[in-house]
Amino acid sequence: MFLVEGNKIICELPQSNFKVKEIFSTDPQKLDRTDVPIIQITENELKKISFLKTPKDSVAVCYLPEDEKMEDKDVQLVLDGIQDPGNLGTIIRLADWFGIEQIICSEDTVDVYNPKVIQATMGSFTRVNIIYTDLVEYLSKTENVNIGTDMEGENIYTFEKPKKLNLILGNEGNGMRPETEKLLNQCITIPRFGKSQSTESLNVSMAAGIILGQLFSR
Amino acid sequence: MFLVEGNKIICELPQSNFKVKEIFSTDPQKLDRTDVPIIQITENELKKISFLKTPKDSVAVCYLPEDEKMEDKDVQLVLDGIQDPGNLGTIIRLADWFGIEQIICSEDTVDVYNPKVIQATMGSFTRVNIIYTDLVEYLSKTENVNIGTDMEGENIYTFEKPKKLNLILGNEGNGMRPETEKLLNQCITIPRFGKSQSTESLNVSMAAGIILGQLFSR
Repeated sequence: MFLVEGNKIICELPQSNFKVKEIFSTDPQKLDRTDVPIIQITENELKKISFLKTPKDSVAVCYLPEDEKMEDKDVQLVLDGIQDPGNLGTIIRLADWFGIEQIICSEDTVDVYNPKVIQATMGSFTRVNIIYTDLVEYLSKTENVNIGTDMEGENIYTFEKPKKLNLILGNEGNGMRPETEKLLNQCITIPRFGKSQSTESLNVSMAAGIILGQLFSR
Repeated sequence: MFLVEGNKIICELPQSNFKVKEIFSTDPQKLDRTDVPIIQITENELKKISFLKTPKDSVAVCYLPEDEKMEDKDVQLVLDGIQDPGNLGTIIRLADWFGIEQIICSEDTVDVYNPKVIQATMGSFTRVNIIYTDLVEYLSKTENVNIGTDMEGENIYTFEKPKKLNLILGNEGNGMRPETEKLLNQCITIPRFGKSQSTESLNVSMAAGIILGQLFSR
């Protein structure tokens, strides 16, 4: 099971494949659902069960989905060891915005059902298929072009987008694993316009946003 | 005064206009500076003075800079009531990446010297000029084209970028104030590719990243 917090996201669940077991709410009237048990609780009880610093109105207990068969989509994100729940949440939200249906994650990527990830997606987790698998095995046999990012890659502004691609994003501190890097077909880079010689790069989810913004511009 | 934490950012200060009063460090050898007093402290003392959950190695006490005269730059960001320190930090880091030298903030935008903002900029605050002012007054007299974002604006992929512009970003929950909106010359929008009918939009700093990525592509 996993938890979804807040009426706003809970109300998106009926349009998804996620099934709700029960909902605990301080204000059941607002939920307008008769198909699942809704249990009235006090603000104090909500505080005890919520994972949020400032709990919202309701908490839904949901069933984990069954594993779906993996089938490549034309444009996919591949995450190699993303650790920060906020980053994974933001990347899922980005995928949803750009209509990317599937994200393939290495087995050590942070769990999508981590409460912080679920909240950071703002409901987008219901619309993007997230699969955890052995990346080396997956990247070796996919027919999509495996595209990574590095400092010496092709400029994203002139890069020609292949029809079927995996955009691979590495760990926040260490980037991609060497085994993953070996399986790349191409590398791209976001040119830096500032004068700064600092080695500091963009945060991984921001880099993903800028790259996707560019890939979808044509 | 304000605090800068961590040797990595502290070591960028000599290349900036920011003056350091003193540094408290658990490992003074690593800092390699003789021009300011460095006081050795214990890990426990560091924990008490640090604003971070997991304190780094050192804390520098810095002088607030003197107010600089404001002079329009060709491309500027204008922030109308950004409240989240992480968002402001991320936006400053983006500005640094794209070589944007100046950000104009409404007086109620979160303080750049808030420790959370300083840390989120990863040192970029030393390279971007941040000015707080009355936005209505500023936007009325600037010669840059005032560009806002909304759902019905011009598509960022076909939009023609003026030579001198202010990109205006509104508050996380409420967007721009009506008084600010009245002073816009143009509106742009990031087209949504996903099938989602959800009203949820992108986070303000992510939207800024995608727009800047596009503006700088030509």
